[in-house]
Amino acid sequence: MSPGKTILASKIAKRFTDEIQAKAALLARRPKLVGLLANPDPAAKQYAEWTGKTSESLGFDYQLIQVEKEQLEDQIYKCNDDSSVNGIMVYFPVYGDGQDRYLQQCVAVEKDVEGLNFRYVSNMYHNIRYLDEKQEKKSILPCTPLAVVKILEHLGVYNPLLNYGDRLYGKTITVVNRSEIVGRPLAALLANDGATVYSVDINSIQIYERGDGLRLKKHVVLDCDKSLKECALSSDVIITGVPSESYKFPTEYVKRGAVAINFASHKNFNDDVKDVASLYVPSIGKVTIAMLLRNLLRLIENNAK
Amino acid sequence: MSPGKTILASKIAKRFTDEIQAKAALLARRPKLVGLLANPDPAAKQYAEWTGKTSESLGFDYQLIQVEKEQLEDQIYKCNDDSSVNGIMVYFPVYGDGQDRYLQQCVAVEKDVEGLNFRYVSNMYHNIRYLDEKQEKKSILPCTPLAVVKILEHLGVYNPLLNYGDRLYGKTITVVNRSEIVGRPLAALLANDGATVYSVDINSIQIYERGDGLRLKKHVVLDCDKSLKECALSSDVIITGVPSESYKFPTEYVKRGAVAINFASHKNFNDDVKDVASLYVPSIGKVTIAMLLRNLLRLIENNAK
Repeated sequence: MSPGKTILASKIAKRFTDEIQAKAALLARRPKLVGLLANPDPAAKQYAEWTGKTSESLGFDYQLIQVEKEQLEDQIYKCNDDSSVNGIMVYFPVYGDGQDRYLQQCVAVEKDVEGLNFRYVSNMYHNIRYLDEKQEKKSILPCTPLAVVKILEHLGVYNPLLNYGDRLYGKTITVVNRSEIVGRPLAALLANDGATVYSVDINSIQIYERGDGLRLKKHVVLDCDKSLKECALSSDVIITGVPSESYKFPTEYVKRGAVAINFASHKNFNDDVKDVASLYVPSIGKVTIAMLLRNLLRLIENNAK
Repeated sequence: MSPGKTILASKIAKRFTDEIQAKAALLARRPKLVGLLANPDPAAKQYAEWTGKTSESLGFDYQLIQVEKEQLEDQIYKCNDDSSVNGIMVYFPVYGDGQDRYLQQCVAVEKDVEGLNFRYVSNMYHNIRYLDEKQEKKSILPCTPLAVVKILEHLGVYNPLLNYGDRLYGKTITVVNRSEIVGRPLAALLANDGATVYSVDINSIQIYERGDGLRLKKHVVLDCDKSLKECALSSDVIITGVPSESYKFPTEYVKRGAVAINFASHKNFNDDVKDVASLYVPSIGKVTIAMLLRNLLRLIENNAK
């Protein structure tokens, strides 16, 4: 029997959903999340409905609004102005190009549960954790990278004996995906928390790190001339997010006893990864949705201050 | 400011001493530990008195018996036969050679708080955790290696999500010292718990491990042709125990963010190790004494079964 363990996102999410439900119950009014769907893909609709179910079950109101692409921007502004709406999420991709990034920025910063507003994203890259000087309002982190952070905490990769902000010191992590939505912010977040991160995309490998003794306050990005195999075999954690049915991370690149996490909707690891990894998290969706609602509660707190 | 932390043994020991004190208080009679000192070294006497102080403060009776070397064996047998004595420890070295190992074996297995009896040591090497088939009586582990294990648990190096017995899976550890009393049993214990261990002495480096996917139930010992520098720089943990004032482990061999632990009575790390290590434990004596008393309580439990 292999000593490795498969850890399900549902189990990790439980602690957060319990906490979210308890916090939501304390509010005078059920918080309201609006999902905006302008994408005919049935998978997107299914995901939207799944968010709805989880939200309702945890004490949130959820409204799914389906619109044509061309009406999406107007609809976002309507929701921005509607005081009954606490949070807005848009099911991307819509246009699948730069216009999606424009649409993201249309969501009011006070209602951006996904943490994709430039202000939040720029704080994250610069390792700025608060919105205000008095440090009363915490900045919002993008849901999926935040979910990965919470999973790494659950798995014991973050070391709570170290100072907050340095708890990945000494850990080496490979992230296969450098998208603007997940891979690049994730690499930055992990490096800002003290890890040495190999950020891998189809064209190159980059190193994100804070240098010897974490002397830098935020990460720098360096070129890496090592191969994926070398990087991966020196990594304590391998995180994959390749949106392709056929892509599989080579099991022989996984270091004995490493942690393996997949955030793609396709299974990026072969089944035999369990023979090599100590802990394997095959998908993270349930933790991501929990982070969405956690962000919504944080927005409500921030707006009340 | 360096992100590394110095963790004192006193802080780690606290949890155990609280537990030990509570357990000892439940017994009908104060447990009695005898320390046998046949060594004129004032440091040994000081250590013996320190053990006494800790024991008394936690609810144990402690009797220090000073004898001539030649009377030590007789004295051990007297204590073996004295039903008021629950545990015996001998302050080694006495002769400083093979005769000391003979004397160790004279201590009754039921009173061997140090876990140095061949039966305990052999169980440890073979990764056998119980004395009986019904698995009711846990085997005793040698104090100092056990203290290191407890320290590694405290520091989060053991991963509690993995199965008991596999919790160091994926960790690489260098142990500088291969004495029969600490270094070799420690390397074996850590490898049996799933680590890849580089065991270093003045003549050679050996690898202790359970193989790919921990397929072996107990560790094997392999020759290692890598240099100390290579081994150390790939290690998550460096543990030193070199009994020399002048020896210092080269700081440039410590991997960024590694854990550094010294069990020698001399400081084996340079002060600048704090600039590189994430967690640094400069000495472990207080945890070792706690383990001594913990073993004593376990012996009382075992003997009652």
